[in-house]
Amino acid sequence: MTVNQKTIAQGTATSPKGFLAGAACVGLKTAEGALDLGMLYSEVPCMAAGMFTLNRVKAAPVILSRRHLEGSRAQAIVVNSGCANACTGEQGMADAEEMAALTAKKLGLASIDVLVASTGIIGVALPMDVVRRGIENVSLSGDDGHKLARAIMTTDTVPKETALRLILGPGDSEIMIGGVAKGAGMIHPDLATQLCFLTTDAAVEPGFLREALKEAVDASFNMITVDGDTSPNDSVIILANGLAGNKTIAHGEPHADAFREALAGACTFLAKSLVRDAEGATRLIEVVVDGALTVAQARMGARTVAGSPLVKAAVNGSDPNWGRIIAALGRSGIEMVESKTDLYVRDICLVKAGIAEPFDEKHVKSLLDEPEVSIRACLNLGSASATAWGCDLTEDYVRINSEYTT
Amino acid sequence: MTVNQKTIAQGTATSPKGFLAGAACVGLKTAEGALDLGMLYSEVPCMAAGMFTLNRVKAAPVILSRRHLEGSRAQAIVVNSGCANACTGEQGMADAEEMAALTAKKLGLASIDVLVASTGIIGVALPMDVVRRGIENVSLSGDDGHKLARAIMTTDTVPKETALRLILGPGDSEIMIGGVAKGAGMIHPDLATQLCFLTTDAAVEPGFLREALKEAVDASFNMITVDGDTSPNDSVIILANGLAGNKTIAHGEPHADAFREALAGACTFLAKSLVRDAEGATRLIEVVVDGALTVAQARMGARTVAGSPLVKAAVNGSDPNWGRIIAALGRSGIEMVESKTDLYVRDICLVKAGIAEPFDEKHVKSLLDEPEVSIRACLNLGSASATAWGCDLTEDYVRINSEYTT
Repeated sequence: MTVNQKTIAQGTATSPKGFLAGAACVGLKTAEGALDLGMLYSEVPCMAAGMFTLNRVKAAPVILSRRHLEGSRAQAIVVNSGCANACTGEQGMADAEEMAALTAKKLGLASIDVLVASTGIIGVALPMDVVRRGIENVSLSGDDGHKLARAIMTTDTVPKETALRLILGPGDSEIMIGGVAKGAGMIHPDLATQLCFLTTDAAVEPGFLREALKEAVDASFNMITVDGDTSPNDSVIILANGLAGNKTIAHGEPHADAFREALAGACTFLAKSLVRDAEGATRLIEVVVDGALTVAQARMGARTVAGSPLVKAAVNGSDPNWGRIIAALGRSGIEMVESKTDLYVRDICLVKAGIAEPFDEKHVKSLLDEPEVSIRACLNLGSASATAWGCDLTEDYVRINSEYTT
Repeated sequence: MTVNQKTIAQGTATSPKGFLAGAACVGLKTAEGALDLGMLYSEVPCMAAGMFTLNRVKAAPVILSRRHLEGSRAQAIVVNSGCANACTGEQGMADAEEMAALTAKKLGLASIDVLVASTGIIGVALPMDVVRRGIENVSLSGDDGHKLARAIMTTDTVPKETALRLILGPGDSEIMIGGVAKGAGMIHPDLATQLCFLTTDAAVEPGFLREALKEAVDASFNMITVDGDTSPNDSVIILANGLAGNKTIAHGEPHADAFREALAGACTFLAKSLVRDAEGATRLIEVVVDGALTVAQARMGARTVAGSPLVKAAVNGSDPNWGRIIAALGRSGIEMVESKTDLYVRDICLVKAGIAEPFDEKHVKSLLDEPEVSIRACLNLGSASATAWGCDLTEDYVRINSEYTT
């Protein structure tokens, strides 16, 4: 993090100026008292941008929110967990539209200024009676980003939230970026979040906002993998309300790069939080591929290693089984030459120019035992580099996903 | 199986005329007395064809065998388990060459007529002293295909072997096709076998042999998936020695289609045997995608569903979680339209035109409890179809792969 950025203690989506949030328990989740309906609201209209699942199967709220974002404006988000409202046909679209309309009415907005998100079981219709009551009852406050973060959780065990302050320099304002995210399974590029709602009080030009969001997501949520599956509901949305009073940030403006970097930082923090809390996971695995011919190849190589079930199982067993790492690189479809490839765990070289190096197995095992494991492959072909994050594969992952029932 | 084919009881790679095999225990595998060096030999020179891993990292024996097959001829195969001789650099190439040379010397052949295969741990050099002794000591017999099948096993719990007789019709001979295969993990298209050695006493024109092998492998070994990983050692080799005395089978000849079909049948039998014995698996999952626009799309859709960790975990839990099936189809990259898609488990329709159908959950759970689970997706877009085979994801898979150590 650069010197002009500062992480906010207990920061969340309501940390930036003018954002309110709230949540209610309406009974969509089985756990008693669990928050399962959330709302995020800006006191003034926002410039907005979103990125959504590339799955051909798109949940109704994804279709609706994309449409509502065509004008690059929004002022509120309504979200539920416990039911994905995916594969629910025309009824599902009508339900998503009603969620937007009821929220708009409550907040005195037009429906088109409300975005909708859902997460949970696929193929089940929303019980709209309880959703309606929930929207009516939810109350908003500037402190309740934390409640929103909890209301979007499904198999997550901890909420994921962040906020940071960015000092734009003398003669301009401070701005803040906040966000909440959820997701613990069905996580893979692209996109890997399931849900992420970002807020900022900066004034940002909408074309630049879209571009900065895409860049940030590509370097963060699109570089994490839990299990290779992609949900029909994945959505990352950013709302920028301009209440910081800064000069509008746009392409080529002095603070454009600082904003980009801060947004990418917030997204990377949240993306790593998702992987750290991945279903059954006990380790975060960071995979760096450098010396690749292109960034696209470095990305694909890093994602493939991070997603390899055999690499993930080896890390779970603290087994320095580097053959699985080089085999995953070899099948990733990127240019690689075995006899040029070096492999490292943290700073210990296991393979030099394709050949096993002697290493202290006990020490490497202890590095693989740590909560954050670092694997690096140097292809020695070019100068491109990328980082991906995954997690170990555990018996608990299988148990959780065998038992989680429709 | 068509009427002119007959499965041979306890058939194996030495069932066709003129093939001998043998195996020895040289100590490459840790289990006491486990066979780990095998040999397959034809009494006369063979037309030969092979398909090998598409992994960029190729084991030394793969590189050698590809080179030796350039003339489409071979007469013997030498194989070891317990050590993959992969990522072993120049020493690995020298070792593979020595294995071919020693086998050739023993059998009175030229080195180029001997193919080599290895399977086991990656990145460790072959202990050539014991390999040399093993090659010297192995004795060959027409009954010992079964020993060969055992000598190539690694994490396999049962040998995989088959043979079938094909009656070419009045005025021509009977021919036989046999084979052995191994593989229980690091299995994914392309290629998915790890190792498969096929034999036939038919006379087959080499160009046609290559084509028929590719077709058979595409429909069988390239349609199975255990874990999405591909080994640097995968090899499927066929030897055709012509001792059946049939008129040479070639493209456009009367028996070409019957041979193609019989070879595909043998490969499919072996491929399904691999999946049935997959690491930790308790169910074979057959996934049919029909109504696709192209065969390539049907194949990709079927392979994606069969490989989805969440679908595999759902089957393990006998959970009719069809949302995971449609989500996997949706992310597979093929053309599919949610509102046209139907899903079945065996003959029970779970989803019609993208919408949940009422079904007897207890009955569907019982279908998912059977050792062979059938999932079918009808895309209703075209007329192309494909079948893939996978297995459930179990806590045992994770345990096996966390503990299997370098």
